[in-house]
Amino acid sequence: MKLNERGLLVVMSGPSGVGKGTIRKALFRMPDNNFCYSVSMTTRKPREGEKNGVDYFFVSREEFEQRIANDELLEYAEFVGEYYGTPKSFIDKKLAEGNEVIMEIEVQGALQVREKMPEAVFIFIVPPSRQALIDRLQVRGTERTPDIEKRLEKAKREFDLAYKYDYIVVNDEVFNAADRIYAIIRAEHAKTERSIHMYNKLMEER
Amino acid sequence: MKLNERGLLVVMSGPSGVGKGTIRKALFRMPDNNFCYSVSMTTRKPREGEKNGVDYFFVSREEFEQRIANDELLEYAEFVGEYYGTPKSFIDKKLAEGNEVIMEIEVQGALQVREKMPEAVFIFIVPPSRQALIDRLQVRGTERTPDIEKRLEKAKREFDLAYKYDYIVVNDEVFNAADRIYAIIRAEHAKTERSIHMYNKLMEER
Repeated sequence: MKLNERGLLVVMSGPSGVGKGTIRKALFRMPDNNFCYSVSMTTRKPREGEKNGVDYFFVSREEFEQRIANDELLEYAEFVGEYYGTPKSFIDKKLAEGNEVIMEIEVQGALQVREKMPEAVFIFIVPPSRQALIDRLQVRGTERTPDIEKRLEKAKREFDLAYKYDYIVVNDEVFNAADRIYAIIRAEHAKTERSIHMYNKLMEER
Repeated sequence: MKLNERGLLVVMSGPSGVGKGTIRKALFRMPDNNFCYSVSMTTRKPREGEKNGVDYFFVSREEFEQRIANDELLEYAEFVGEYYGTPKSFIDKKLAEGNEVIMEIEVQGALQVREKMPEAVFIFIVPPSRQALIDRLQVRGTERTPDIEKRLEKAKREFDLAYKYDYIVVNDEVFNAADRIYAIIRAEHAKTERSIHMYNKLMEER
């Protein structure tokens, strides 16, 4: 019996190469989960096989800029001339339906979300060591060495932002990390500030 | 991989009759747990089969009062002319060894502990409804009706203190409640304020 019926927005972040995507996939394979993805919005054209509302919400540049102006995005950024962002209305609907919305996002985006939605749960994913991150970036293989150096520099700057998150989870082993995140979600629902309202209602019933 | 090696003091509290003892037993049956009990100290004589340091630390009235004077107890109270309390040194030792120390205690005692050890995790156990509590108190059977009335009055006053706890856990089904507490313990270890120190050390290693 959960004392908080509203879903949680769970923001998973951390430097590139720590394995956020793999953990997300492991999370969605957990039994009896009520997780859903946060679907991003973009101005880029859909690629072969991509579906509107599933992979992305595909919108025009005008519509995207209107959303920015109306403060309807939790975060956004521009890459190579295209906008990418997170529409708030979609997340609000899912949370009201009782779904946990899992958002996997870069560090800068996560900090934007924190400002707009402080009640979300912010989890920083870290590698078990600096060397593990270097290894992972190298395994990706396609990158040339200068790229790896650049990414490591960026990762180092991002590591220093860990203190802004609610939780730090080590990706030592994917299942462990996903399981720890699941425990965090369960614990957050039991937090007094989230559960006391329904608890008080329960106790008033005769 | 846990980023916090020190154990947690987990204080389980709630009105009499909510099933704290049953949940505690279920917790200790969890696989791979590193839980240990908080052993209380008392001035009452040991009963048949009770062992010093296991069931209680049995001490003289003088020693107990010396401990009070030295501020060596996390909480204490006097019942029917005998002292009962929680020695801090035993808990500190267990926490330093990495054990989670589970303390099952009355509401008043828990609030005393909160003052001395704010870093502990405070969990308020509640029945799924008022009626469920009445049923449980009646099932205990030996009590006469006026006693149940008195206990319900006390429970009602205690319910109003739920907001002072970190978490509220419903004892709808013992295993669920214990499992939720286990999730809380795992989540608390990942909290940034508990994990960032070791995380920073990890990242410094080359």
